[in-house]
Amino acid sequence: MAKTDKPNDNKLKARLPRGLADRTGAELSATRAMLEKIRAVYELYGFEALETPAFEYTDALGKFLPDQDRPNEGVFSFQDDDEQWLSLRYDLTAPLARYVAENFDKLPKPYRSWRAGYVYRNEKPGPGRFRQFMQFDADTVGAPSVAADAEICMMAADTLEAVGIPRGAYVVRVNNRKVLDGVLEAIGLGGEDNFGRRLIVLRAVDKFDKFGIPGVKLLLGAGRKDESGDFTKGAGLTDAQASLVLAMLDGGISATPAGVSFEMEGRDIEMVARLVSSAVFKEGMDELAEIAALVAAAGYGDRVKVDPSVVRGLEYYTGPVYEAELTFEITDEDGRPVRFGSVAGGGRYDGLVARFRGEKVPATGFSIGVSRLLAALAALGKLDAAAEIGPVVVLAMDKEPARIADYMRMVADLRANGIRAEMYLGGAGMKAQMKYADRRGAPAVVIQGSNEKAAGEVQIKDLVEGARIAASIADNAEYRAARPAQLAVPEAEMVAAIRDILERRAEGTLGLAD
Amino acid sequence: MAKTDKPNDNKLKARLPRGLADRTGAELSATRAMLEKIRAVYELYGFEALETPAFEYTDALGKFLPDQDRPNEGVFSFQDDDEQWLSLRYDLTAPLARYVAENFDKLPKPYRSWRAGYVYRNEKPGPGRFRQFMQFDADTVGAPSVAADAEICMMAADTLEAVGIPRGAYVVRVNNRKVLDGVLEAIGLGGEDNFGRRLIVLRAVDKFDKFGIPGVKLLLGAGRKDESGDFTKGAGLTDAQASLVLAMLDGGISATPAGVSFEMEGRDIEMVARLVSSAVFKEGMDELAEIAALVAAAGYGDRVKVDPSVVRGLEYYTGPVYEAELTFEITDEDGRPVRFGSVAGGGRYDGLVARFRGEKVPATGFSIGVSRLLAALAALGKLDAAAEIGPVVVLAMDKEPARIADYMRMVADLRANGIRAEMYLGGAGMKAQMKYADRRGAPAVVIQGSNEKAAGEVQIKDLVEGARIAASIADNAEYRAARPAQLAVPEAEMVAAIRDILERRAEGTLGLAD
Repeated sequence: MAKTDKPNDNKLKARLPRGLADRTGAELSATRAMLEKIRAVYELYGFEALETPAFEYTDALGKFLPDQDRPNEGVFSFQDDDEQWLSLRYDLTAPLARYVAENFDKLPKPYRSWRAGYVYRNEKPGPGRFRQFMQFDADTVGAPSVAADAEICMMAADTLEAVGIPRGAYVVRVNNRKVLDGVLEAIGLGGEDNFGRRLIVLRAVDKFDKFGIPGVKLLLGAGRKDESGDFTKGAGLTDAQASLVLAMLDGGISATPAGVSFEMEGRDIEMVARLVSSAVFKEGMDELAEIAALVAAAGYGDRVKVDPSVVRGLEYYTGPVYEAELTFEITDEDGRPVRFGSVAGGGRYDGLVARFRGEKVPATGFSIGVSRLLAALAALGKLDAAAEIGPVVVLAMDKEPARIADYMRMVADLRANGIRAEMYLGGAGMKAQMKYADRRGAPAVVIQGSNEKAAGEVQIKDLVEGARIAASIADNAEYRAARPAQLAVPEAEMVAAIRDILERRAEGTLGLAD
Repeated sequence: MAKTDKPNDNKLKARLPRGLADRTGAELSATRAMLEKIRAVYELYGFEALETPAFEYTDALGKFLPDQDRPNEGVFSFQDDDEQWLSLRYDLTAPLARYVAENFDKLPKPYRSWRAGYVYRNEKPGPGRFRQFMQFDADTVGAPSVAADAEICMMAADTLEAVGIPRGAYVVRVNNRKVLDGVLEAIGLGGEDNFGRRLIVLRAVDKFDKFGIPGVKLLLGAGRKDESGDFTKGAGLTDAQASLVLAMLDGGISATPAGVSFEMEGRDIEMVARLVSSAVFKEGMDELAEIAALVAAAGYGDRVKVDPSVVRGLEYYTGPVYEAELTFEITDEDGRPVRFGSVAGGGRYDGLVARFRGEKVPATGFSIGVSRLLAALAALGKLDAAAEIGPVVVLAMDKEPARIADYMRMVADLRANGIRAEMYLGGAGMKAQMKYADRRGAPAVVIQGSNEKAAGEVQIKDLVEGARIAASIADNAEYRAARPAQLAVPEAEMVAAIRDILERRAEGTLGLAD
């Protein structure tokens, strides 16, 4: 069907590449306001600003050299003229590791930094799944103590409240990779050979929020059939194995400020014995108990909670992992209520800087998904997007240069008085100019034709008041006769008259919000 | 000399790719403050926020499909999995043209937008020449009138003053591509064949600031030898041809609010006749006179000046071009005084959107080089980088969990009172902790060992006052005996005592600045 193309085909087609987004006014200003609030909390906690560039040497990102046939697997990569491979960063943690390793001696240690910026993923785009998105991270490098993890969890709580998520509508859940590792070891899934099965177990545990204990139990065993009849193959664990894994979810394993507790009744004795004697498990549980104690002492016990069901995917975590979850419900695509879910997460990654330094460097950090948090605020009706007031538009009634100069002077006057203003710069007539002003959300327009000019006056139309009155006057002729919300003032009083309109509008807006 | 490598060579080398920069605290906060000021001016002028992604389809950027052997010529390019070429944007104008063309019908026209963001150039990096740098643009699309150009020039002036460049230290110079084209045509350098020679002429004219009329004259003729003896080949123009080009520089051609004037005495009659009858030249000069009149009427005549010596490189300009130049002097690498020079520029590019739409869309816009403007503010000592106050550091005197919980509680207390604070999270002893606090620029540290704990007290060291006193006490023993700037307060008074120190410090800082 080559004929469907328009005749003028040598025109380029203007199209945004897939998986990317253009952003405009209200979204950008809401994002900016939110980023400022996050930054204020991070700085209150003593974190310092750092910005690294958008791309790094591919090997520094922890990817192997790109394959000539598939140089973009997961990341976007290109070759420099000296043949070295570069890739767009896919997160803000790998570049931090590079930065710390490169500047190790001159940095204060521990080194606390925050970083905000876009990251890029070469993945199949989908709904809500972009190839460029913003993260806002904070990391503490060089702090071996779990006090650093506890602090970041508390900061996550403060951050959510600062941007407008009310207390009670979120929870920061903390787990420890070592606990998971201990359990997997105890049920005989340790070692390289079991990598694949471990992954299936982790995926099953990750479904706890969605399917509850019975669902996870099926996924750990033979498998689970969903309502539509689709079958997900399970991990094939025995009941005894599954029971130990489920202990992480049913409260069998818990860590509180008071200490670590196990309720292992009814589980396999041998496995429990292996578990409680596992060094890595004990270490993990003790760390969780310490975090719980620190958090409780600082008054965050109601918001930061140890929860052994948290699983975070990234391979590089080596200790505590944490996730900020919004607990209020929204409606999913099928109209069913679902929890909003995770908006930020992170954990301890003691191995990441080691790739450069040859020695382990303790580090912990977390990352906020900026668009996701913004979507949460929108769902709560808490978007900080004070309806932007458009510019006052001075209409271009006459097009000769001397009159244009008059209009420009009026605009300059308004701006010098701090009033957002512009002259209509297009070529259209009066009616289209009014439509333009409307489209821009102008609070008022200024009109000076030759009659007004001769009288030393300007006409000012209050578009907000005008729209209100228009809505209450049924008859078109009556409306025109009344010429509502339009006034003639001497040129010298233009700024004052516009200021009045803006003030009335501001009051009106406040009135609506109350 | 393979032996120079350390034994552990399988370590990755941590290195920033060439031509890129990491940015930290003071630079980032100064940049942020400056960007906010620029944004405020742009919004006052009625421009709306727009953000496009970091990369576009290569063809949309106006580059031809990358050559398989050199896919990164000028831009950084990579191929998507559907074989389409993508490139990192090299400016913010080409993506705007794509955005406008793609959303043409739903945008108000004229469409005024501002955009700030990083752009990427695949060029050889050098001193002050980065492969990633930030631009801050404003453009008006759909406004055929030169009032749009005049407005952007005035906005450029307001922006420079808003960020801190004093009036008199800058000038916005305006020229018109059509004037240049008319002159080149009149001296017989029109047409495709003369593209190369035109370029040499433009480069010569561009050197006017540096070499003056005599230097440009040489470059237009046979060539010029500099002090070091290096010879630059000239454009090979005849004296008559050169004389007409020089008319743009010596005031022979001028446009003022009063109109256009020529002083063509002593120049070649035939060429002058060709020039004054050239439609493109007349149009260009009339536009310049109109801009001069608009600017004068709005009160910007002392800051925005028509200057036919302005040449801007980009091929796509089709009408007025403008450049914001800082006129104060700095010292160059060789210790000689030089003008700071250009920090922003732009012009009219009526053809850029046309590539997508098939019809011309009038557009004009300009771009601020963010780092360059920041460097100018630094040179003027006007960097808005209020020495950031570091966090109060609570020392970790005892490492058992219960004591750590005490310290965390203190930190939480300080933060809840809006005081930037952190607990020392590293593993080092007291001395190293004090050094850390110093390095972080901490105004004070809080110390609670077991004695203080037993007494319900904390020790607070005022580091600013301490440094001042230390400088005035010669003897180390005397200093220790005095224990200056250290006080013990009950735990409950910690926040108040720290607040006192911060207030004294704020006053002290003000005192220094006066």
